Amino acid sequence: MANRGDGAVRFGVNYTPSAGWFHHWLDFDLDVVHRDFDSIASLGADHVRIFPLWSIFQPNRTLIRPQALKDLGALVDAAAEHGLEVSVDALQGHLSSFDFLPAWVTSWHRANLFSDPLVKRGQLAYLKELAASLAGKSNVLGLSLGNEFSQFASAEHPDVQAVSPAEAENWLIELLGAVQQEFPEGQHCHAEYDSAFFDPRHPFTPAGTARHGAMSTVHSWVFNQTAQRYGGMSPESLRLAEYLTELARAWAKDPLRPIWLQEIGAPSPHVAAEFAGEFTREALRNVLDCEGLWGVTWWCSHDVDRALADFPELEYDLGLFRTDQTLKDQGRAFQEIAADAPATAERRSTSLVLDVGDEATAPGRAQCAPGGAFFESWMELAKAGARPGVVLASHREDSTYLQARGIEQLVEIDDTRALSY
Amino acid sequence: MANRGDGAVRFGVNYTPSAGWFHHWLDFDLDVVHRDFDSIASLGADHVRIFPLWSIFQPNRTLIRPQALKDLGALVDAAAEHGLEVSVDALQGHLSSFDFLPAWVTSWHRANLFSDPLVKRGQLAYLKELAASLAGKSNVLGLSLGNEFSQFASAEHPDVQAVSPAEAENWLIELLGAVQQEFPEGQHCHAEYDSAFFDPRHPFTPAGTARHGAMSTVHSWVFNQTAQRYGGMSPESLRLAEYLTELARAWAKDPLRPIWLQEIGAPSPHVAAEFAGEFTREALRNVLDCEGLWGVTWWCSHDVDRALADFPELEYDLGLFRTDQTLKDQGRAFQEIAADAPATAERRSTSLVLDVGDEATAPGRAQCAPGGAFFESWMELAKAGARPGVVLASHREDSTYLQARGIEQLVEIDDTRALSY
Repeated sequence: MANRGDGAVRFGVNYTPSAGWFHHWLDFDLDVVHRDFDSIASLGADHVRIFPLWSIFQPNRTLIRPQALKDLGALVDAAAEHGLEVSVDALQGHLSSFDFLPAWVTSWHRANLFSDPLVKRGQLAYLKELAASLAGKSNVLGLSLGNEFSQFASAEHPDVQAVSPAEAENWLIELLGAVQQEFPEGQHCHAEYDSAFFDPRHPFTPAGTARHGAMSTVHSWVFNQTAQRYGGMSPESLRLAEYLTELARAWAKDPLRPIWLQEIGAPSPHVAAEFAGEFTREALRNVLDCEGLWGVTWWCSHDVDRALADFPELEYDLGLFRTDQTLKDQGRAFQEIAADAPATAERRSTSLVLDVGDEATAPGRAQCAPGGAFFESWMELAKAGARPGVVLASHREDSTYLQARGIEQLVEIDDTRALSY
Repeated sequence: MANRGDGAVRFGVNYTPSAGWFHHWLDFDLDVVHRDFDSIASLGADHVRIFPLWSIFQPNRTLIRPQALKDLGALVDAAAEHGLEVSVDALQGHLSSFDFLPAWVTSWHRANLFSDPLVKRGQLAYLKELAASLAGKSNVLGLSLGNEFSQFASAEHPDVQAVSPAEAENWLIELLGAVQQEFPEGQHCHAEYDSAFFDPRHPFTPAGTARHGAMSTVHSWVFNQTAQRYGGMSPESLRLAEYLTELARAWAKDPLRPIWLQEIGAPSPHVAAEFAGEFTREALRNVLDCEGLWGVTWWCSHDVDRALADFPELEYDLGLFRTDQTLKDQGRAFQEIAADAPATAERRSTSLVLDVGDEATAPGRAQCAPGGAFFESWMELAKAGARPGVVLASHREDSTYLQARGIEQLVEIDDTRALSY
């Protein structure tokens, strides 16, 4: 199993079925899956991340559909035939702007998705059954709790759930524990988007999110104001994944905790289609210069069929392949990089110190967002050639920690403009 | 086709699949359907009302799943094999406290279900394709727009949609027109619950709802405060369907417009299980004493499997059959009444005059609800043996209208206590 592999960086894709997008679960067709996996394997990819739809797999709290689990198992087995390992996200939840919530948690049955005891009981039952059904399959890497499920706790979500940081962390601990119990050999994660690191209102905190599960996960999307502010092909955009990886590392307790770049894509028009190949190549090269990177999982395998309506424009063309299985520029770039990736990255001996105030709640985390002082300082250092890491203020004097990471020089935000490399 | 039949009152059931409830669409199994239809036919029923789930049939605005339409067609054909005609509700929408809305109208894609142009376009496309797929099947009676879809416009719904009475009526007209166009021979309806007749805040008005579609529909549920206020076996509860039928008749423009008692059930604990048979018998006898009744469709065919969670307690035991296909008391009562129903009912020569103020918006309609002055006056007359109908105040002097209905005596609310029969 690759999670006990040789340590080489793993390359994979987030699998978006070429026919019917994630609605394919309603019309599950192994022929389509095989065709898609054949294309994906041709990239040199070794794994896929896949997304059951919660409302289809568990339409009633106590009905976890055996046929859905069977389809999922068949998909996993099909992946094995193409030499692909599989990571499974459970609670979808949220995908490409669409929310899929089962009827038993919506409208008249509305209940808090993170703290209601009945909802939690349902989620735990689902996660356990899912994990148990996958534990025996040797090409399953593990589960993630759900794709960006914490979007439902975002202040910007139309159905925002009132959740405290303590409730959010309890939810992570409880759900990951359940998965671990049923599938002890798996590397189980949760799949966070950048708001946990950037938005002081978000109850999923950097500390809470980077310290649970087998790896920290990074979702790198330049449409998060990085492209809007600096340009889609700016150093800031090309280094966003690298930056987020170093940021996630800083928040982990274990200095050697592996990091998974679970999502990165080249969204148009933020990245113009003609530059998508170059973006892919450069962004990957930059993040591959981070040590301890478990792997990179591109979003996504296949474009969204334009016969499907109402996606945000940028979601349609994120595939490495078109729906007819032809390879796109970004697909070729991914293929080249995957074929030729360096075995390991050098350690980063210089780190920028991050002070967000109380580290449990991180009230000062907005400085880490695009346009923020910390973001800009880190980018200045990086552009100057410093290969910067990130160290939390609480580790400033912790020589054991700094030594474990190989850090020789600490830079304070205010100093960055004075330094030259 | 039964809609061109001999005029005898039709008996049918709302089909709740014995396995998986309406989630059966995800695991469609014709064997189960045949087993259920075999039971239903044994009741002497001649039709079923069926409920596709919107989110499964149209998961994306421009994806109306061919396989779902194929399953629906197979279910209709199976009904034919058992001598059953079929009426199909489209937009579910709302069923037994659960709401099934596709992801393209919820959360980030939230849009008004009755007035947003894109949502309407999607609904129209769905209704048309559904209607077209059913128009060629000789045992399909017609479509209803959706089961109690106007619940989403109720002030009490957690996701209440802001809708004006004019928008509500436009929605009815536009959607019914689309269905009619694709399936001209069908008798197409919309399926309203009693709030349209009772709640002055509801944008679906009595006038708007009783004047569109091939028939007026009545949903008679004693848990609407009738049982709570008067008792589940009170004359009020036993006459609720009769009352609603006469009320719907009053609001129709055509004095001879047929009325379909589309839903009636014996909900426990409002009606204790030991009285369910008697309730069924008496409530049906009372409503069969209304002229121009197209038919009665009992809610529902089969109990909800208690392995399924989170239904309101009363929803589990509404079946005429248990999930193991054994017949319940209410099933036997239904069977007896269906076997022995009178061919026609006498006209009602006495009517109570209803004055709700402006009839377009009916600001005074609360008097029609259980506990209201009109409701109680009508019940007093009925209990005294008067067989009362209902006439709108605007028809008080309209001798053509009164003659067409055979009304000889008008009773004003204030007079009722002075009368004796």
